[in-house]
Amino acid sequence: MQFPLDSRQGPAFGLRPGTTAANAQQTMWPELQNDTFLRACLRQSTPHTPVWLMRQAGRYLPEYKATRVKAGNSFMSLATNVQYATEVTLQPLDRFSLDAAILFSDILTVPDAMGLGLSFGAGEGPRFARPVRTEADVVALQVPDLNKLRYVFDAVTSIRKALNGRVPLIGFSGSPWTLACYMVEGSGSDDYRLVKSMLYGRPDLMQRVLDINTQAVTAYLNAQVDAGAQALMLFDSWGGVLADGAFQRFSLDHTRRVVQGLKRDKDGQRIPVIVFTKGGGLWLQQLADCGADVVGLDWTVNLADARRRVGHRVALQGNLDPAVLFAPPEAVAREAVAVLDSFGRPQRADGGWDGHIFNLGHGINQHTPPENVAALVEAVHTHSRRLRALA
Amino acid sequence: MQFPLDSRQGPAFGLRPGTTAANAQQTMWPELQNDTFLRACLRQSTPHTPVWLMRQAGRYLPEYKATRVKAGNSFMSLATNVQYATEVTLQPLDRFSLDAAILFSDILTVPDAMGLGLSFGAGEGPRFARPVRTEADVVALQVPDLNKLRYVFDAVTSIRKALNGRVPLIGFSGSPWTLACYMVEGSGSDDYRLVKSMLYGRPDLMQRVLDINTQAVTAYLNAQVDAGAQALMLFDSWGGVLADGAFQRFSLDHTRRVVQGLKRDKDGQRIPVIVFTKGGGLWLQQLADCGADVVGLDWTVNLADARRRVGHRVALQGNLDPAVLFAPPEAVAREAVAVLDSFGRPQRADGGWDGHIFNLGHGINQHTPPENVAALVEAVHTHSRRLRALA
Repeated sequence: MQFPLDSRQGPAFGLRPGTTAANAQQTMWPELQNDTFLRACLRQSTPHTPVWLMRQAGRYLPEYKATRVKAGNSFMSLATNVQYATEVTLQPLDRFSLDAAILFSDILTVPDAMGLGLSFGAGEGPRFARPVRTEADVVALQVPDLNKLRYVFDAVTSIRKALNGRVPLIGFSGSPWTLACYMVEGSGSDDYRLVKSMLYGRPDLMQRVLDINTQAVTAYLNAQVDAGAQALMLFDSWGGVLADGAFQRFSLDHTRRVVQGLKRDKDGQRIPVIVFTKGGGLWLQQLADCGADVVGLDWTVNLADARRRVGHRVALQGNLDPAVLFAPPEAVAREAVAVLDSFGRPQRADGGWDGHIFNLGHGINQHTPPENVAALVEAVHTHSRRLRALA
Repeated sequence: MQFPLDSRQGPAFGLRPGTTAANAQQTMWPELQNDTFLRACLRQSTPHTPVWLMRQAGRYLPEYKATRVKAGNSFMSLATNVQYATEVTLQPLDRFSLDAAILFSDILTVPDAMGLGLSFGAGEGPRFARPVRTEADVVALQVPDLNKLRYVFDAVTSIRKALNGRVPLIGFSGSPWTLACYMVEGSGSDDYRLVKSMLYGRPDLMQRVLDINTQAVTAYLNAQVDAGAQALMLFDSWGGVLADGAFQRFSLDHTRRVVQGLKRDKDGQRIPVIVFTKGGGLWLQQLADCGADVVGLDWTVNLADARRRVGHRVALQGNLDPAVLFAPPEAVAREAVAVLDSFGRPQRADGGWDGHIFNLGHGINQHTPPENVAALVEAVHTHSRRLRALA
């Protein structure tokens, strides 16, 4: 007997019976004490602009490095251990008044579960032992058994418990296109030669990879919701390397299909969905129409202009250049204020609210001084309260 | 006694007397046989869409590699030798019906002449032995003596002669901001931590570096015109890594100052200026207002949309994804047609012409099969003639 996580996906994605601890927890979650993040995602009023930082649990924090050493100094040994993943997820919340937590994991867990063999070399990015390069590789590719990703869902449940209602927990995945980049290239790339050769030379194979990724990512994110995730984010980290036209066919169409397949309500709560295409500013309007609640923006986008372009369709998340955090705290605060002012007062003249979630335009850099993050969070909260009070 | 190249720059930029061979040549150049590139830059009628490729003289050509071996297998030994630089510049023209030649050189010659010590390691990008990291480094920085760049101007004159009027010759430089990135980082970077730390932490120092670069690049490009360059291109390769706001202050303002300081007429001919900010699609209208004749676009930009956004202010250059050239020739031709169709017929309903110069959205990749370049050039010429003939 199987216990389907989502009836739309059929039994192939089910977890084995007796392993659905998350579902049993549904009604046991403590009440949320800070819902500013969720409210801003849904374009509701908030007393301040919520702020969280992509990769906020990470190497810039000494306590993260200490936990990593305990875990044998490997990224995957942290990510696959529920206790360590919980510990590091909560570390930045103990230092800074952040308004959301994000699951500690990697965007590439899904292709790892497909059997591609994910590893992180010392000082290197991710690498797959068995990349998808040939027609035979593509034909052999299958949507993974979600039981192989149980460590992720267990971490989600553990973190949600440990948060004890302080702030909401965001689950996430790489987008179908971004996963495909790594799956075909086998690692990061500066020219995307292999994946683009497949895309332009054998678009049929590329679409098959993307279809499988789309099914897998949808089921994976829904299982995170079942396990306790209160919002979802899709990282299309490499959408911006595609040409106009190719982006729509090979990235956005699949992002849209994932978003359409997601559970949007859980225990009477709306589960907001954020999509973020780095380098996707030119496609902002199309991204705003993909069905997500929030579009993430990198720092090249002018926020005032972006707000005009999306109208009231979606909230916006972003978009400080993470490199600002290398400057002294006064400069950090000044640039944070500039981002908030660019978006402007979230209250509209018609009485409605537009949503802004403050974030960086990319993951926080490992060389960031933690005290500058404190200055940033403080500046966002203080100045955004001030903005709301303006007549 | 000094011989100023450009009276606006004063004597500091002069070449030593007796070394101005280029000026003496002015009236000796043979008549241009193919002016489609220059005419398209100036939004005049052309029988086909001109095409050239960034980095068209390069490692994807076996004959280039052969010359490089002769030169001792180093990039700088090729670039600093007039005979070799001339030879490799002409190689792609002998294979393909390209409509322009571009000086074989590097964007980083100017900071090398400032004494920063440019080198290219085997399989690596450029590297400076003495990067600009401290206040003392910045204070010591000076506009270089143009005589140190004589090898470039001699190459321009030699290439112009060797071209014998086949196609026009494009001179170029890195933009002030792009030079500053390399000068401060000392090499390529994936996070621009050092240069952005200076930018946000000590904007006064950053502006001083940029001011010096602006003066140097302006004088350098004007000297290329004196030596025989018939068009100029400013490569703002790293403008796209800047945040909105920072881009305008630290890149675009200096690009504009360079463009304003350039000689735009030589021997009765207009010298068109192309500016290209990779990743700058969101700032297209601002780039179109910087005084250049042409704005280069990378492949993320929709050409039809770009044409609408710039109106009739500038011509557009671009924007095929260089990765398309890894696909089979039929796919290359199909994608080239898609780019041409996206721009549309250059003739307007009001009888005027909008300019389109076909190019890649970035330099050609070293792994490109040369036969695919032949297919590309053929497709651009054939299909663009067809487009013009449409009622």
